[in-house]
Amino acid sequence: MSMTSLIGVDWGTTNARAFRYDHMGTVIEQRHRRIGLLNIKNREWEAAFREHFGDWIDGAPTASVILCGMVGSQQGWSEAPYVACPVNKDDLGANLYRIPNTEYFIVPGVRSDDSVNVPDVMRGEETQIVGLNLRESQIVCLPGTHSKWVRLENGVITAFQTYLTGELFQVLSNHSILSRTLEERQPSESAFLQGLDDSNRAGGLLHQLFGVRGLRLFGKLSGSAQSDYLSGLLIGNEVRSALDDLPPIQPITLVGSDALVSRYEKALQYLGHPVEVINGEQAASQGLWQIAIRARLIKSP
Amino acid sequence: MSMTSLIGVDWGTTNARAFRYDHMGTVIEQRHRRIGLLNIKNREWEAAFREHFGDWIDGAPTASVILCGMVGSQQGWSEAPYVACPVNKDDLGANLYRIPNTEYFIVPGVRSDDSVNVPDVMRGEETQIVGLNLRESQIVCLPGTHSKWVRLENGVITAFQTYLTGELFQVLSNHSILSRTLEERQPSESAFLQGLDDSNRAGGLLHQLFGVRGLRLFGKLSGSAQSDYLSGLLIGNEVRSALDDLPPIQPITLVGSDALVSRYEKALQYLGHPVEVINGEQAASQGLWQIAIRARLIKSP
Repeated sequence: MSMTSLIGVDWGTTNARAFRYDHMGTVIEQRHRRIGLLNIKNREWEAAFREHFGDWIDGAPTASVILCGMVGSQQGWSEAPYVACPVNKDDLGANLYRIPNTEYFIVPGVRSDDSVNVPDVMRGEETQIVGLNLRESQIVCLPGTHSKWVRLENGVITAFQTYLTGELFQVLSNHSILSRTLEERQPSESAFLQGLDDSNRAGGLLHQLFGVRGLRLFGKLSGSAQSDYLSGLLIGNEVRSALDDLPPIQPITLVGSDALVSRYEKALQYLGHPVEVINGEQAASQGLWQIAIRARLIKSP
Repeated sequence: MSMTSLIGVDWGTTNARAFRYDHMGTVIEQRHRRIGLLNIKNREWEAAFREHFGDWIDGAPTASVILCGMVGSQQGWSEAPYVACPVNKDDLGANLYRIPNTEYFIVPGVRSDDSVNVPDVMRGEETQIVGLNLRESQIVCLPGTHSKWVRLENGVITAFQTYLTGELFQVLSNHSILSRTLEERQPSESAFLQGLDDSNRAGGLLHQLFGVRGLRLFGKLSGSAQSDYLSGLLIGNEVRSALDDLPPIQPITLVGSDALVSRYEKALQYLGHPVEVINGEQAASQGLWQIAIRARLIKSP
């Protein structure tokens, strides 16, 4: 383990993805643990860090440590301040936050204020975006529990919007009247597309959501297809709102590789917007490395 | 009790409001029990009916019995079919549903299909509307867990839309990331108005909801005012969507007497739409009586 120069962890709400790098920035080992903000009790982040990655630290006592994601939130290990847009990788590196009484650093969060001064925030996605090395001006969409639509201009994050879509899908599926008619999900492309269509119905989202019940009551939607219809309705609303807010020819890059990303791809294509999909698997590890270099935590190879 | 001619119960998701009428239609006794769809186990509606109103039945064996509300839903005592819009009180009376093996009748549900054939449904509100005796053409808004916006033309229900607003407020307050920053509610008119304002922000509802978190993180909204801001955001979205769909000079009648109705009144006034508020307390009892007459369950006095 003597060759380890950096240990990086993308530590979010439900997952920790950790990377051990050599002095050239090559990831020589990585770990994925299903532990995060939601299941770390009593804010025992340091104990969790020792438990899962202590052997890496012990094996490389001179390596630097950099973290990003919800680990830096108010409910995280220690709160790392936000930097305001516009933000590039130099700004992130210059504003690394040192966890008190440790030699560990956290990438700052990023803040974007809209025209009426409502703040929006991200933690973790800024690091992924750095790792993608996108130079062109474009919109980057990162689907998830809290989807991000990020405006990138020549590598600078100039603004972004978060959508509560994934979380709303979960709470409606588990806790609302819609949960009572839900049956085990059988993938239904047609129900998803019907949901996308109906996301344009008069009355807006609050009315459209009750439509799920109406369709179910009269057998126009099956219990096993209800999830895909609801998914289409919610993603359709998100994508339509986001597109409304963009210059028309803005290229959109979707980041990710899972089933959720393919839903967004389908939705954007269905709404007539061209989209490129990038597999974001390496983005966090690349971003952590690059920010560590900018912060001079390690020497550029 | 010999003078009882009719027993009527408006029996919904969480409440039963029962009325005992003399032969002139005057309510001579009423009861309110906090029992409904959500807390009746194993569909034991008949037992619940006996428990709470059995003495009325025993005391007036020749009285007719009429019920309305979720008692007639799929999960209710017995499923009463829907009648499709346009619907007036004659249609409701002509389509009373008799619960098998009883002499009890349930007012049918009402169904309204939109331009793309998504069905909407109501159970109970149709009876309240009959009881209001509104003859002018207008929009009637009945705020609640599932708010109804009903188009009334010369006393006929021609169409309606349901909004999931109240329920979404509950699930977000109890089960989402927003619940974590919620503190005991202190009434805040300014937070409610700010929410109404922000319901017009770019990005639509899914983005606006995440704004609650942004405002909280930077101390721009207090934990005790968060509920009122969220209420303003959701009601604002509902009212804007509903108004978008209406001819501009349509008068709107708000039905109810509780705090929720005064929020809707404030929202409509704030958005520049004139509104009349009717206390709907007698509406259900009046509606049940009138429908019973149309159905010839009882003789017109």
